[in-house]
Amino acid sequence: MACSLGLDFGTSSVRALLLDLDSGREVAAADADYVHGTGGVIGAASDPDVARQHPLDWLQGLTVAVRAALRAAGPGFDPSSVIGIGTAGTGSTPVPVDRQGRALAEAPGLDHEPAALAWLWKDHTAHAEAAAIVGAVRSAQLPYLDPCGGTYSPEWFWAKVLHCARSAPAVFARAWSWVELCDFVPAWLCDARDPATLPRSVCAAGHKGMFGQDGFVGWPAAAFLGRLHPGLAELAGRLPPQACTADRRAGTLAPAIADQLGLVAGIPVAVGCLDAHAGAVGAGIGAGDLVKVIGTSSCDMAVARGDSAPASVAGIAGVVRGSILPGWIGYEAGQAAVGDLYAAAARLLSRSHDGLQRDAAGLAPGASGLLALDWQHGNRCVLMDQELSGLVLGLSLQTTPAELYRALLEATAFGARVIVDTLVAGGVPVRRIVACGGIAQKSPLLLQLHADVLDREIVVAGSTQASALGAAIFGAVAAGAFAAVGTAQVRLCPPLRAAYRPAARARAAYAELWPLYRTLHDAFGRGERLDLQSTMKRLLQLRSRCRAG
Amino acid sequence: MACSLGLDFGTSSVRALLLDLDSGREVAAADADYVHGTGGVIGAASDPDVARQHPLDWLQGLTVAVRAALRAAGPGFDPSSVIGIGTAGTGSTPVPVDRQGRALAEAPGLDHEPAALAWLWKDHTAHAEAAAIVGAVRSAQLPYLDPCGGTYSPEWFWAKVLHCARSAPAVFARAWSWVELCDFVPAWLCDARDPATLPRSVCAAGHKGMFGQDGFVGWPAAAFLGRLHPGLAELAGRLPPQACTADRRAGTLAPAIADQLGLVAGIPVAVGCLDAHAGAVGAGIGAGDLVKVIGTSSCDMAVARGDSAPASVAGIAGVVRGSILPGWIGYEAGQAAVGDLYAAAARLLSRSHDGLQRDAAGLAPGASGLLALDWQHGNRCVLMDQELSGLVLGLSLQTTPAELYRALLEATAFGARVIVDTLVAGGVPVRRIVACGGIAQKSPLLLQLHADVLDREIVVAGSTQASALGAAIFGAVAAGAFAAVGTAQVRLCPPLRAAYRPAARARAAYAELWPLYRTLHDAFGRGERLDLQSTMKRLLQLRSRCRAG
Repeated sequence: MACSLGLDFGTSSVRALLLDLDSGREVAAADADYVHGTGGVIGAASDPDVARQHPLDWLQGLTVAVRAALRAAGPGFDPSSVIGIGTAGTGSTPVPVDRQGRALAEAPGLDHEPAALAWLWKDHTAHAEAAAIVGAVRSAQLPYLDPCGGTYSPEWFWAKVLHCARSAPAVFARAWSWVELCDFVPAWLCDARDPATLPRSVCAAGHKGMFGQDGFVGWPAAAFLGRLHPGLAELAGRLPPQACTADRRAGTLAPAIADQLGLVAGIPVAVGCLDAHAGAVGAGIGAGDLVKVIGTSSCDMAVARGDSAPASVAGIAGVVRGSILPGWIGYEAGQAAVGDLYAAAARLLSRSHDGLQRDAAGLAPGASGLLALDWQHGNRCVLMDQELSGLVLGLSLQTTPAELYRALLEATAFGARVIVDTLVAGGVPVRRIVACGGIAQKSPLLLQLHADVLDREIVVAGSTQASALGAAIFGAVAAGAFAAVGTAQVRLCPPLRAAYRPAARARAAYAELWPLYRTLHDAFGRGERLDLQSTMKRLLQLRSRCRAG
Repeated sequence: MACSLGLDFGTSSVRALLLDLDSGREVAAADADYVHGTGGVIGAASDPDVARQHPLDWLQGLTVAVRAALRAAGPGFDPSSVIGIGTAGTGSTPVPVDRQGRALAEAPGLDHEPAALAWLWKDHTAHAEAAAIVGAVRSAQLPYLDPCGGTYSPEWFWAKVLHCARSAPAVFARAWSWVELCDFVPAWLCDARDPATLPRSVCAAGHKGMFGQDGFVGWPAAAFLGRLHPGLAELAGRLPPQACTADRRAGTLAPAIADQLGLVAGIPVAVGCLDAHAGAVGAGIGAGDLVKVIGTSSCDMAVARGDSAPASVAGIAGVVRGSILPGWIGYEAGQAAVGDLYAAAARLLSRSHDGLQRDAAGLAPGASGLLALDWQHGNRCVLMDQELSGLVLGLSLQTTPAELYRALLEATAFGARVIVDTLVAGGVPVRRIVACGGIAQKSPLLLQLHADVLDREIVVAGSTQASALGAAIFGAVAAGAFAAVGTAQVRLCPPLRAAYRPAARARAAYAELWPLYRTLHDAFGRGERLDLQSTMKRLLQLRSRCRAG
């Protein structure tokens, strides 16, 4: 038996998956929670935008998870059957490192300094810096934002680095370079941490890192970055000139790390990739598919190649060659908060998810009179604006917790529809929607709402751990077990599962709600001056009709 | 010692107050809860607009409350010292009655028929009928809506009666007439229930019943009403041609009722009045005062007389001669839900009021980033539109229950400011704001928020039971103990209490929030096409500044 080890670094925990490369069977899997912060996230009471993570949580967590997976595989399992390792992680989650590639937070004295930690994907402190980057690119008429839909997010690499340079110059000065989580871990596994040479994944570098492959090539010019901050120009000069796809080898497992993990030294370690991209691969993404990884946030991905593949799509922030499947253009959209939104609602309402889901499932579409915007954490697509907030319209004295919760679920489904419509309008074919990720597994209600709101069938990925599976697939390809990712997918991705089909009555209600959502979306998100009085009144009229049956 | 008995019929209970007419001292008071429905309100699961009440709850409740008050007055108290009775009650709360003035619901077989119950003030089923009335008045260019600010509410007499005629014709056919709660009770006390002759209070008849005193006089013309429904014309013909102020006698206490209550027969019973108007009197209303009775909803009242008293004010729904103080024009505005809104929020959030108030009081103004519209039960003033709903803007993943609760309190304070500004703009002087009512007593936070948002001092009425006190004052005047209401107020109203003054920092935050509230108000309430994107963004900017200190 030959196995691949897939590692998936989520927001709160890391998963290790041992995958049988002959059958695609899961041999064993184990999770390890991060120990710092709350659910792995280190925030700040004074600023809800702060979201940091301790890089040692990744290294200690993967050790715990891999050893647990090996134990779970049973005494008959031979660790030498593991022939490759792939890793996937959140991003953009850059961590400042020293000349040797060690995270600054690994050093005593800096381990409690927020700026020295990893800047988690959902850290939103770099508003002003994102705006400065956009302004600088536009005023210089440079093409750097073409793959980003014309804007730049505070969640991304250069904005975070610039925010550190401005707000924590002492920490910034101690950082010789910055490394994304998905590159940091393979380098550690290979004990080849020199930040000047460790491979950078195109998944993270492309668009989020403004690394160009078409139109412009490589990192932004030092002259441009230097205008933002001299330290940024210096950093760009220290980054390797290439970015790699995740089917390539980052290196081989170092002996000391192999001992620590209980694996055999020298096995290939793949270049890392973003967790969402790995999830799309694990969900079996191919031409015409839209894979929605629905977790704390959502990532919506499609691929295309050849002449029919548009090089950019208005409103889609991530168009990167090789980001999902090597050789294809990857299209990446997403929603800034999905599971996070439901968790926030459950906290706000002091209720359990299970009870809210059960009660919400029993409600008739349109009958609550509620309509919400899902921008509690900003809007990643198509507005690409973090400086937004959530809205609930249609509250009455009788509004129940389940109604409010359902309205938030519906809002995320409406947000998903905006993305699908935008992709299709931009020339990216969407013939099938595949859901995966934790929330997709846990909430049949949400998937049914997506089917009803999108008026499309939703199928569910066969794997409940698509990102870890995708990582294992990259590990297998990097190890030479398969010639290409597509070949590996055919063998290793389990068949798609339950399909959710639009229900007639719900379709009708959501067909009426959809233009009302669009009105709120365009009024609050785009500043269009629209008639909102009639929006409020149409909601009440729909409520009356839906309640009457 | 001479006493007056004040009866105050609220939404959920009735209060009896024995007032010493020499000192103004409260001799004793007692409450009795209504026994039907939930908190006295009989709703319908299928229709949140339904709010009915059983008229027997008033009669049985007042008996319980009066006897309890007499017991509480102690063995030394002589019931013959009670020389007059005044009553105040919610309205418009009409009840269908038979030829003898008995409520239809008093008859077996009809006591479970919703249409045969009293139609509680907050019943909102008569949307379509209110619209039909407005349409009919406008198309016929009649002056009937001049005292109502140009529109008519589903909460009011003719809309409710018309809705009954249309939706429950069998019940309607059995009703010889309809009587408001505040007229029903005095008639019962006097055992003079003939609906053709029992006195109708100008408090309820004026504007809510379209009874005119200036411009047009008396009830709407039968020809007009008949176009809406033949039964309405018939009803108008059966109503007495006058409406009376509450300082007049309705009659004298009937012997059988006196026995039942433990009082002396033959004492004067005053014409009834609306609870809010009585509250204003009990709070000591005079020239330049705005009295806010803050309970489940709010009623905001001012008085003026002479040449400086405007005969109508744009946006103010109730301008009625004699409705509050005999001889003065009463101006009545209000908010459709205040305490009801907080109760709904506490239910939605599964939290206690006490905890929410405590936590909300600790928050810094503007720091939540939230802004709400207080239209969960429609908007009574200045939009006079029931077909509206509540809205919350600015939600984040970190929004807490206390933040949401505080935003709703703030929304009602913003709604109060709209009313004050409208009165002042319309020529009604507001030199002092006096708060009374249950919520005003219970929530120092709310009063402080009103002071901060209105940027005015708020004083609190000396009595914690201003409506019952006002009713007792009317009872005393009707009994001849005082020559006029004003004279009685000087003797009987306790001095004003704690004043809330605007706090500098809060004023600044609310000065920024106020135009944002107005933007939401005018966009959703008036259909004005405004820039809401900048509203959303300004909220976030204010949040950042307020959090930074």
